[in-house]
Amino acid sequence: MTDLRSDTVTRPSADMLAAMAGARVGDDVYGEDPTVALLEQRVAELFGKEDALFCATGSLANQLGVWLHTPPGTEVLCDAQAHIARAEMGGHAANAGVTMRTWQSVRGRLVADDALALVAVDCGPYLVETACLEVEDTHNFGGGTVQDFDELRKLSEGARALGVATHLDGARLANAAAVTGRSFDEYGALFDTVSLCLSKGLGAPVGSVLVGTAEQMARARVQRKRLGAGWRQAGVLAAAGLHALDHNLGRIADDHLAARALAEAINSVRPGTVDQESVVTNIVLVDAPDAPSVAARLRERGVLVSVLGPSALRAVTHLDVTAAQCAEAGALIAAELAG
Amino acid sequence: MTDLRSDTVTRPSADMLAAMAGARVGDDVYGEDPTVALLEQRVAELFGKEDALFCATGSLANQLGVWLHTPPGTEVLCDAQAHIARAEMGGHAANAGVTMRTWQSVRGRLVADDALALVAVDCGPYLVETACLEVEDTHNFGGGTVQDFDELRKLSEGARALGVATHLDGARLANAAAVTGRSFDEYGALFDTVSLCLSKGLGAPVGSVLVGTAEQMARARVQRKRLGAGWRQAGVLAAAGLHALDHNLGRIADDHLAARALAEAINSVRPGTVDQESVVTNIVLVDAPDAPSVAARLRERGVLVSVLGPSALRAVTHLDVTAAQCAEAGALIAAELAG
Amino acid sequence: MTDLRSDTVTRPSADMLAAMAGARVGDDVYGEDPTVALLEQRVAELFGKEDALFCATGSLANQLGVWLHTPPGTEVLCDAQAHIARAEMGGHAANAGVTMRTWQSVRGRLVADDALALVAVDCGPYLVETACLEVEDTHNFGGGTVQDFDELRKLSEGARALGVATHLDGARLANAAAVTGRSFDEYGALFDTVSLCLSKGLGAPVGSVLVGTAEQMARARVQRKRLGAGWRQAGVLAAAGLHALDHNLGRIADDHLAARALAEAINSVRPGTVDQESVVTNIVLVDAPDAPSVAARLRERGVLVSVLGPSALRAVTHLDVTAAQCAEAGALIAAELAG
Amino acid sequence: MTDLRSDTVTRPSADMLAAMAGARVGDDVYGEDPTVALLEQRVAELFGKEDALFCATGSLANQLGVWLHTPPGTEVLCDAQAHIARAEMGGHAANAGVTMRTWQSVRGRLVADDALALVAVDCGPYLVETACLEVEDTHNFGGGTVQDFDELRKLSEGARALGVATHLDGARLANAAAVTGRSFDEYGALFDTVSLCLSKGLGAPVGSVLVGTAEQMARARVQRKRLGAGWRQAGVLAAAGLHALDHNLGRIADDHLAARALAEAINSVRPGTVDQESVVTNIVLVDAPDAPSVAARLRERGVLVSVLGPSALRAVTHLDVTAAQCAEAGALIAAELAG
Repeated sequence: MTDLRSDTVTRPSADMLAAMAGARVGDDVYGEDPTVALLEQRVAELFGKEDALFCATGSLANQLGVWLHTPPGTEVLCDAQAHIARAEMGGHAANAGVTMRTWQSVRGRLVADDALALVAVDCGPYLVETACLEVEDTHNFGGGTVQDFDELRKLSEGARALGVATHLDGARLANAAAVTGRSFDEYGALFDTVSLCLSKGLGAPVGSVLVGTAEQMARARVQRKRLGAGWRQAGVLAAAGLHALDHNLGRIADDHLAARALAEAINSVRPGTVDQESVVTNIVLVDAPDAPSVAARLRERGVLVSVLGPSALRAVTHLDVTAAQCAEAGALIAAELAG
Repeated sequence: MTDLRSDTVTRPSADMLAAMAGARVGDDVYGEDPTVALLEQRVAELFGKEDALFCATGSLANQLGVWLHTPPGTEVLCDAQAHIARAEMGGHAANAGVTMRTWQSVRGRLVADDALALVAVDCGPYLVETACLEVEDTHNFGGGTVQDFDELRKLSEGARALGVATHLDGARLANAAAVTGRSFDEYGALFDTVSLCLSKGLGAPVGSVLVGTAEQMARARVQRKRLGAGWRQAGVLAAAGLHALDHNLGRIADDHLAARALAEAINSVRPGTVDQESVVTNIVLVDAPDAPSVAARLRERGVLVSVLGPSALRAVTHLDVTAAQCAEAGALIAAELAG
Repeated sequence: MTDLRSDTVTRPSADMLAAMAGARVGDDVYGEDPTVALLEQRVAELFGKEDALFCATGSLANQLGVWLHTPPGTEVLCDAQAHIARAEMGGHAANAGVTMRTWQSVRGRLVADDALALVAVDCGPYLVETACLEVEDTHNFGGGTVQDFDELRKLSEGARALGVATHLDGARLANAAAVTGRSFDEYGALFDTVSLCLSKGLGAPVGSVLVGTAEQMARARVQRKRLGAGWRQAGVLAAAGLHALDHNLGRIADDHLAARALAEAINSVRPGTVDQESVVTNIVLVDAPDAPSVAARLRERGVLVSVLGPSALRAVTHLDVTAAQCAEAGALIAAELAG
Repeated sequence: MTDLRSDTVTRPSADMLAAMAGARVGDDVYGEDPTVALLEQRVAELFGKEDALFCATGSLANQLGVWLHTPPGTEVLCDAQAHIARAEMGGHAANAGVTMRTWQSVRGRLVADDALALVAVDCGPYLVETACLEVEDTHNFGGGTVQDFDELRKLSEGARALGVATHLDGARLANAAAVTGRSFDEYGALFDTVSLCLSKGLGAPVGSVLVGTAEQMARARVQRKRLGAGWRQAGVLAAAGLHALDHNLGRIADDHLAARALAEAINSVRPGTVDQESVVTNIVLVDAPDAPSVAARLRERGVLVSVLGPSALRAVTHLDVTAAQCAEAGALIAAELAG
């Protein structure tokens, strides 16, 4: 099977498993797991932040990041197709009473002025106050869209001028950074908190990391426990995360090449099926009339893709598939679309 | 003082007070206040609905309406400048765990397709489900914008086809209906629940009414108590509401004439200061550089207006000000803007 | 009908209605209702507090009082039969994320040491912190039990030594004070916040008042709006509250005499049916095998009582029933119990 | 160091790590991790339940269990010293709006009648409804108290007769079962849902399991995602859980012997310091005047214990300490207490 449904499907390699088995661990509820501490220190440093918190999922890291900035009854602003708006089951509202307003975009691409135009501050006691602006980079539902760094900077400067906090959903920031050539600490300088996922393109089995100030991470640690997420000897997983940073961060541009190969394989047979210009990272959106049945037929031929809507498929490349497999999958997709 | 800050500032007339003093009352927590029952029955019938619930505020009626349709973790969609999004202190999220996404508009005018494009249903267990679409008519922050009835119908039909519930924030629906010539039951036919405010243009001191099915109102009554809002001998207030429906509903178009007179008084001195075409109900938005100081000077001259932003004032006409007072206020505003 | 279900069933007198009709009013959301301001100032002074907030219900005043002291994830401690635990629909948890632990008592009588034994403070980041102790006086489900003032003082001193805030549910504090001879400000000195209900024994149609510091009331005002409870020209109701304080506070001991007369009328026929010693305020608990059918038969004979359980009835005296009516009702109850 | 602070401090053995490294994994958000599936099936069968859900923590499993039974605004009843009341940071209220009332006990020992006496059902729309009764076995803060099986059965039968759901916090149920000789499915038959912790006495690094019906587990899976806890290739951890069930379940009585040895070592020097009769599982509560400084001195001598209060220490035995180490630790504790 060539599983292109998501980059979350990657499995730990033998080397990663060996690193996990060899990890020194302790009780992380007591703050005593040395490998968790190493990972948190490592990621904090990568982003130029004081501290970090290792979380079981990217959704948790985002919930904690937004929660830090947004007291009950205040709002977070984000893209209408943001992961925090659409794919976190309303947890921000349900668990923390955060309300949300959203802006529209083309393929998830941030236009800082559109976001800043929604901000409401100094409203007095009658109106909701904007407490946080959130951006996702790369933008998942937008098809892996890489945010323009100048727009991020503009948003950051605007938010700071208005006294509004910022959170970056960096689930796939490694993919974005591979395209822009920017370092993680350049991103970290723009946002108050950032989440980074270790279990997507980076290939760890479980885990995301939230970064921010030491005071923020201490508060997030308590809220993490309130969400039932204060785990114990998590060092076995943190070891996988460290291994991923050591070995898989540098190769992430390979996934982008594989995605482009996949798209080209489709377009060479059926020109225009994929918007080639939009394929800049590891996500390929495919126009596919009758998408569910196409996906079902592809499954029979050994290729798994996601159905995003009645006429949209998504293929995501990652470290468990080669560029050759992706090109071959592209040919099969084209054939099924033709068929 | 000519108080044009809002139509919420109206005070009960002598006749209305007499009606209140003469009302038969009982304990509404036990469902035994006969005047509350009369009001609820009256408004339910106006909208062609089974039942109604008398609430202390429009915010409460909206919270209950949205809550009825939106289990924790599901979402309501609305305009980014909707009252429920901006002026209800995030209560929907804080009290009921409702999450929200918003569309953009020009002056709050609904474009049904823009709203429907955001709907997410049949998403499986990974994505937030749209449970409710909300519309505000007239649109307060849009400047009293009256929704096009055909767009409302289109939204309603679209929502029903998708299995999404609808709530109409009709705080100022009396103003809208006076312009469109539609009856309340025509609106009621399009929406699952509607709130109607009695203490704005209708002149009652306190109260809004929510309408829907009998089953919905029974559930809303319990949630109302959970919000600490199950009041006792509310018949004294319901009597004011009944008086308002009897005497003030028919005169609401007068407020629209007064608003137009006010706008013309300004534009005759300073052309283009008010977008005359936008003044269709009782709200006038005024371009005013240095708005806070203009408002302060107007206060000294006996005219109260709201400051909406650094260069925006709002004047609202109502049954406690005459058209002549409004025209005079317009002249004063123009003079201060000139000064 | 002699309606003894609750003292909430009282209806405004002609004098009270006249006071309401004559009240000066304004928009209380803007803090501009002069009669609301008068009432708030009056009650604040009665309790020796800086400020007060007029609320639609006692449940709302209690929710706001507890909310002021109890951030999400901290706990309030109270009696297992407290009104806030049993009769406010879980609003403290549902709307504000407050968690609760409870102590047991005999008829709701506070034993300060039992309450203080539950307190958990300085627990570190692993355990829930006690943020508020709550007491109800008189205790409704306990049968109108008056708290021993020395126990209240002991609780207050203990709580302050531990840094835990206190809230007094004084829905029927007027009844308690009539028995202990203590003034409201003696109670106010012991508790950080107090709620007082105007629509029970005091006879106003709608309303309760919360008292505390000015800073607390400013925050409570915002949360009140978030709960959908920021009403407009509430001065018509505040006028009833002022009238109640002027005319009905002094007569509340009459209700206690009437309750005793009722209990004696029952016991004279059926000795031991009511625990006469427990009848110190206006609530009478009656042992009644097959209580629902007894209540149904009493209704046919013109007496309304509450069914508290399969073998328990409750009769509550108030300013709309005379001592003679109560004694007569007692005789009827005894007759039905015999029958 | 002999670390007796908690049985959560255990570290995976070499064999367990090998099992983890050899595990087949998949994406558990898609329900495709075969090792997670195996663990869930195994634990469900142990308890005679249809299905199970693998969770990162016992707090999460308890939150989901209680949430399944308790709609917003309804209540859960539990012991005032229950883990869900004191050690889960108020998450039940903060995340799910669950309210709570508590009963008192001696050392956490359930008296079913005391619990059932608090139940409130069929209350009508004015009162909170009891939706869930919760019991903890063994009872952590009670000192590892094993619940009497007949009391559990009585509670279960009473709850079912009243239509109230039940949840068993079985974090240390393996310890309880080792004492009572009852099988897990005997416990499972009494409770609607049960949580079992794999990372305490059973020695897995991370994880707890919730069991119940298939329908409940499907709903819990969605709520788990809402809490940010829908992890990916969790099979690496599930493998540890399976290994723990295979190898560590049978030896748990050894921890009880070690605890008794520790207690005896203390009492032989300082009779009466430990209530020997209360030491039936792996938790030893030690009367220790000036507990914090005793704990600090013990740390210098290589023994870690928990401080439960100003004059109470707790020592917990587990699979990473031998009976000999425990006896030696007991002697050291006695020596330090002697001064």
